[in-house]
Formats: sequence, structure tokens, C-alpha cells
Amino acid sequence: MNIGIIGGGSVGQTLGAALAARGHAVVIGIRNPSGEELAKPRAQADTLEAWLARTGSRVSDIPTAAAGAELVINATKGDGSIAAIRAAGHGLDGKVLIDVANPLDFSRGMPPFLMAEYAGPTSLAEQIQAVVPGARVVKAFNTVAAAVMVNPGLIPGPHDLFMAGNDTIAKETVSGIARSFGWTEIVDLGDLAGARATESLLPIWVRLWMTGGSPLVNLHVTRG
Amino acid sequence: MNIGIIGGGSVGQTLGAALAARGHAVVIGIRNPSGEELAKPRAQADTLEAWLARTGSRVSDIPTAAAGAELVINATKGDGSIAAIRAAGHGLDGKVLIDVANPLDFSRGMPPFLMAEYAGPTSLAEQIQAVVPGARVVKAFNTVAAAVMVNPGLIPGPHDLFMAGNDTIAKETVSGIARSFGWTEIVDLGDLAGARATESLLPIWVRLWMTGGSPLVNLHVTRG
Repeated sequence: MNIGIIGGGSVGQTLGAALAARGHAVVIGIRNPSGEELAKPRAQADTLEAWLARTGSRVSDIPTAAAGAELVINATKGDGSIAAIRAAGHGLDGKVLIDVANPLDFSRGMPPFLMAEYAGPTSLAEQIQAVVPGARVVKAFNTVAAAVMVNPGLIPGPHDLFMAGNDTIAKETVSGIARSFGWTEIVDLGDLAGARATESLLPIWVRLWMTGGSPLVNLHVTRG
Repeated sequence: MNIGIIGGGSVGQTLGAALAARGHAVVIGIRNPSGEELAKPRAQADTLEAWLARTGSRVSDIPTAAAGAELVINATKGDGSIAAIRAAGHGLDGKVLIDVANPLDFSRGMPPFLMAEYAGPTSLAEQIQAVVPGARVVKAFNTVAAAVMVNPGLIPGPHDLFMAGNDTIAKETVSGIARSFGWTEIVDLGDLAGARATESLLPIWVRLWMTGGSPLVNLHVTRG
């Protein structure tokens, strides 16, 4: 599949490399795909130059990455997601858009908290859907570390991947990608309002990381 | 132990009955302990009259319940918690105060969301601690249904009770009560700022209830 990934940071690179390794044609879209930008050091990630050399993928601007893709992943930071989705615009029409972003406010340092504009009776995913009503938005992968997204076996025992979205077929597509990464426990939280629930998981995820000393941590739903 | 419970609803009654059954002397404190109030029908709970007859416990006003207790539980609704804690006042000094309340806003119907004044870089538990700095506040039990709080066996397999608080000895006391209810998996999230994480779990807990059809649902932490 032709897959466009918006965002060239740790999450975009990790998902992109895993998808490329499974035979997908991956293009990372960033605001300004200049040589200088490709050589720029990135937090907890390669330079995009190094990532390109390693994966044999491509980098472009955001509209090109979206327009040329069959499926698009939003892997931007939450505070830049709406602008990035606006840039992709009609290139997203009809396409599955996996929203991996978390609307976290780091302005007070660690731990971050949910940005007020995406808390309460809404979510970043729903506000993205409102910007691109023609896209088939699925919130997924946002509740685990990037390394775990593409390799759930890093955490032994059952643990869950949550997803939410309005389009059942789109969720099946995302489940297929998740299964290709090794996920067996996939919890469908219903329509896109379920993204409020998974975006709200970030405070406990960060807390479990801080108190346990490792980002290799996740949750498993248990029922009576 | 002499235990005061602030709040006579489903959570207060369930915790109170379980504690009384384990030999504790329980007093439920409510704003107005009149005969009319005791006979009032309550959502998903007995009248307090029926609860008193069943448990052999007592009902009083809030200051009396707090002042006479060795340990106090805040089982009020989140939007009334600060007022109730102010009413208890210095009766809480030096005492373990288990905060079970969730600051949920139901003004838009279901699903509720976190009240804005307790979201962001704070929590209801921390704001309660600020009102009664002499109390030893422990956030606990707020992430499961009342029936599960006192009977974790209703959900088979490992699932977790989260707690957070600034006072290690107070958390040991609360762990002891939890173990008396049957909890074996107790996750200490560190100081009281950890309450931000557990109060933020309510959206996914409600969502899992709505999509799964039962409030007998909880989470288990898995680590790599």
C-alpha cells in the first residue's frame, strides 16, 4: 500500500520503517523537506537523511505525501496536528487517516497534561475529523511507546491496542496493519468519541513510565 | 477502626457495609441527617434507613462523622467534594483521608468528562489536600465500580487497584484495607500528583462500560 506519514519524528520514523519493512511504499511528509531539515538532529530519532538511507523510503512536503497515499498517518505532535491536517487538506478525502497524535501540553514541564482545547467533551481526533470530513479518521496506536506500536512483543503477556473511529471498514484496515505488527489484543472503543478515552490515557501512561522507569508499559482490559 | 464516610450514596454505602462486615465501626456523614433524608430513595443504592438497619452502623452530620473517626473516606460526588471536605475541616487533621471521588461533569449527559477546574496540571485529590493540609490524603478506589472496590473477585484474572498519596504510612493503611477486600494487585503511583492519572482514567472506564455493556471492567498494568 502507498502510505503517507505526516511527521518526521520518532513516531513517524518508527511506524514508517516498520511499514516499509512489510513491503509498503512509505512517504514521510514534513512542512519543509529541505536538505537542512533532513540533516537536522531529532529527539530520540535518526536524522531523516539517515532514516531515508536505512529504509529506502521518501520524504516530501505534506500535501504531496497525503495526495499520493492510499492511507495516511498523522504522527505530528498534538499541538501541530490541526495545522498539518489543514495542509494535507483534500488530499485526505476518502482515505483512512490513522491519528496517532496526543494533544499534550508540556508548557509546565513534566508531566504533561491534556491541552485544554482538546479535553472535555471533545478530542483531537474529533477535531481533526471536523477539519477533514471526507477522511476516515481512526484513532489508534497513541497509547503506547513508538517501539511498542510496531512490536507489541516487547511487553510480554496480554496487553491491548485501543482504536476508535466512525468507519468500520477503516477500522478493519487499521486492525490489519496492527496485526501485521504482531498485535493480537485490539479493543474497538466504538465511534470516534472513543478517542476522548484513549487521549485521556496519556496521564496514566506517563505516570506509569515515571514510577516504573520504563516506557515499555501498557494496559490490559479485564472484564467480569 | 472508627471509620467516617462522607457521602451516603452508592459508593459510601457499599464501602461502609463492607467495612462494617469486617468489624469496623462505620459512621456515614451527610449534610443533613434528618429522618426525611434517611428515607429518601437513592440512585443504585438503598435508602440510608435500610442501610442502617442492614449494617448496624450510624449516620451523622459531616463534622461529627469526621471528628469521631480514625480514618475518613470521601465518597461524595466530585462536584460536591470540596464543600464536604470544608465542612469536615479540622476533624480531618492528622487522619488518613481516602479520596474516592471523581470530578466528572455530567452537564452534557453521557459520557461525562473531567470538570475543567480539576483537569490540567491538578486533580481533585490535590485540591482537597490543599483545603485540609493536615489530612493524609490517599487517592484510591476511584477507578472501579463500587461493587468491585470491595469485591475485586467479581472480575477474574489480574486487575489493578491504583493509589497515590504523599504519605507512605497512610498508603500502607489504605493497602491494608484494600487487601481486606481481596485486592492483591495494588499499583502505587507515587505522590498525590498521581491522582491526575487515575482521575483521568474515568473516560476510558466509562467507555469500556458503554461498549462492553457492564461496569465490571478494570485494567491491568503490563510491563516489558
